Amino acid sequence: VDPDEYFTPADTFRILMATDNHLGYMEKDPVRGDDSFNTFEEILQLAHDHEVDMILLGGDLFHDNKPSQRSFHTAMTLLRQYCLGDRPCHIDILSDQSENFPDRFATVNYQDPNFNVSIPVFSIHGNHDDPSGGGNLCALEVLSVAGLVNYFGRQATLDEVHIKPVLLRKGGSRLALYGLGNVRDERLNRLFRDRRVYMHRPKQQETEWFNMMVLHQNRVAHGRNNFIPETYLADFLHLVLWGHEHQCLIDPQINESKDLFVTQPGSSVATSLCEGEAATKHVGILSIKGTTFAIEKVRLRTVRPFVMDEVVLDSVPELYAKDQTAVNEFLQQKVAEMIERARGSWKELNPDLADELFPKPLIRLKVEYSGGFTTFNPQRFGQNYIDKVANPKEILSFYRKRTATRVKSA
Amino acid sequence: VDPDEYFTPADTFRILMATDNHLGYMEKDPVRGDDSFNTFEEILQLAHDHEVDMILLGGDLFHDNKPSQRSFHTAMTLLRQYCLGDRPCHIDILSDQSENFPDRFATVNYQDPNFNVSIPVFSIHGNHDDPSGGGNLCALEVLSVAGLVNYFGRQATLDEVHIKPVLLRKGGSRLALYGLGNVRDERLNRLFRDRRVYMHRPKQQETEWFNMMVLHQNRVAHGRNNFIPETYLADFLHLVLWGHEHQCLIDPQINESKDLFVTQPGSSVATSLCEGEAATKHVGILSIKGTTFAIEKVRLRTVRPFVMDEVVLDSVPELYAKDQTAVNEFLQQKVAEMIERARGSWKELNPDLADELFPKPLIRLKVEYSGGFTTFNPQRFGQNYIDKVANPKEILSFYRKRTATRVKSA
Ligand SMILES: [Mn+2]
Ligand SMILES: [Mn+2]
Ligand SMILES: [Mn+2]
Ligand SMILES: [Mn+2]
Repeated sequence: VDPDEYFTPADTFRILMATDNHLGYMEKDPVRGDDSFNTFEEILQLAHDHEVDMILLGGDLFHDNKPSQRSFHTAMTLLRQYCLGDRPCHIDILSDQSENFPDRFATVNYQDPNFNVSIPVFSIHGNHDDPSGGGNLCALEVLSVAGLVNYFGRQATLDEVHIKPVLLRKGGSRLALYGLGNVRDERLNRLFRDRRVYMHRPKQQETEWFNMMVLHQNRVAHGRNNFIPETYLADFLHLVLWGHEHQCLIDPQINESKDLFVTQPGSSVATSLCEGEAATKHVGILSIKGTTFAIEKVRLRTVRPFVMDEVVLDSVPELYAKDQTAVNEFLQQKVAEMIERARGSWKELNPDLADELFPKPLIRLKVEYSGGFTTFNPQRFGQNYIDKVANPKEILSFYRKRTATRVKSA
Repeated sequence: VDPDEYFTPADTFRILMATDNHLGYMEKDPVRGDDSFNTFEEILQLAHDHEVDMILLGGDLFHDNKPSQRSFHTAMTLLRQYCLGDRPCHIDILSDQSENFPDRFATVNYQDPNFNVSIPVFSIHGNHDDPSGGGNLCALEVLSVAGLVNYFGRQATLDEVHIKPVLLRKGGSRLALYGLGNVRDERLNRLFRDRRVYMHRPKQQETEWFNMMVLHQNRVAHGRNNFIPETYLADFLHLVLWGHEHQCLIDPQINESKDLFVTQPGSSVATSLCEGEAATKHVGILSIKGTTFAIEKVRLRTVRPFVMDEVVLDSVPELYAKDQTAVNEFLQQKVAEMIERARGSWKELNPDLADELFPKPLIRLKVEYSGGFTTFNPQRFGQNYIDKVANPKEILSFYRKRTATRVKSA
């Protein structure tokens, strides 16, 4: 069937999915300081333009669990600008709101008569913006009390995990949204193995619900019990929005053994210079009607271009270990090519923008130097690129074949 | 005339005045941690019960210019609970809102269609919550972007000060509200002397306005130019709400040479153990009709009882300098009396509350020890009072007649 015909507006949830926006990442950097905010604004603009019913975020909205005043102010400014307004939200909420949103107000923001919400935002917390400090507050609770975000999926205790879904209805479609804010991976893995993770399914019309889960955990194995295997998740789920992993793998991947799909939107700002972050970044527009869904992916245009490459010095015929000058020139030429590649893909993505708006790209060149080559100071190398590259001090990364790589926390 | 007859509701502004709430003061103290929040809640409850048109705050709403997540969360929770709602606000705003509230939204909160505001709060900043950090943001701007506070009186530059009033009308009454957030006293004093403080009076109906100013500066002289003499203020003002000074002097005091009145509400939580803070604390309900005003003062009931006293050891007949035990016993007896005094005034103020709700009071006994008496460790003395006094370590303060006293910043 043609999706445009199948997904009739009155019965279709339209949800913008994004995650790991890391607001405030490098906010003091004169070049990159606004990156996280700019792309979050683009995402909200997309939600507005696509007239979605709601936004669903997968955690790490803030980079720090105690965001700066500027991060709070910017997040609130953007949410107020794009998510408040007169367009009504056509989603009914059927679950007990005091269980889903257990604060003093115990209500979803768009049903509070004191706020005029056009696009409700639902979010769990990640490991970066987890509850902490005096009162064990989560930054999302500050946005929640301001009526700007619906924060859900926080566990009262960690002896057992009880996930009570937010139950939503739009026309004839029903969505059960199971949220689980980040829990230390080893602990959650253990709770799953001990069968202490309880999914509280609605008792009525059990088969009619579209069952979706949002979580923020390692998906890639980092040691034996330091991730959550997809096979641990409940059989009845149709779709999982997986936060925390920064690589964009937003096209739904089926887990055959479970007959469930996983979508991993990835971060909207690169917080490390690794392959996963260099992949092109998207958000998804999820359509759900009955128990059928589709994801339209939308490429983000404001993301700073990031080109990553690798060179093995010993396999370059014209280079000799003792000729440092030639090695340096070779690497400079390589970096120049990478900058041009960044420019090319940026222009393709932004044909309407003037050339001079090309932002300084992120460039990372990994250099394998075994075979008698010597390393040199990457910071000094970077001095030539202060006006051309956003991360001049960190362009080069020397390694040897044998070097063990450590996985960075996302 | 009888005020109740004169101040007809349709033509009378009713404004709750408070200042120096110092939210977050000692928030980590297990005994006093909630004091600032509790009394702020009482103030908002009073505003609600008295059905005022608006709340006017004189600065130092927060104790820190980077409030903790908990302070923000609590402030926003209380403002949302008490100041949003269906009761309409009957005040028209006649001035250019983009000049009064120069942020992205440029609107007074109760006229923003996305918020349902029942009691608008207007506030300037103090020296404790002044603009700072990345983006030079003021904590009040965070509340402002959340639609919870109307932050005004910030100066774009400090070469000249231009104060453009918020112009308000209720029925036949007109109120021009001149706000000036805290500026370093020496600097502002200088600007006044250089005639660089400009009050932008409305051109129409000049004589019909009730002219009120809110500022947050030293009123008491601390050195020659380190305060703002009342005589520096504009002649045409009718009333000044003076923030920053923590002693409650809320009954309007006339400055004869200027024919203007000053009301100094004082802090709502004691942030130092000095005489000024020990005075009973009030907020004011200001009524304005035409160019006439009245202030009804309302005593705050949640303020932690604070009794201060002084003893000159050498003038107590039964004490001898060498008999430390007797001195210690004498001081203990004195402190016990002070606790009973605190209990008495608390019961008088809270006749409806059970005795066991009597909060641990603040007790400060100044001890003049000249004449051969020796001091002893106030912290050790305090160990007897951990269950009885909120500030056990700081009950005693030894001094000698000659000791110079330094004035603390409020
Ligand atoms: Mn994460
Ligand atoms: Mn992340
Ligand atoms: Mn002050
Ligand atoms: Mn103060």
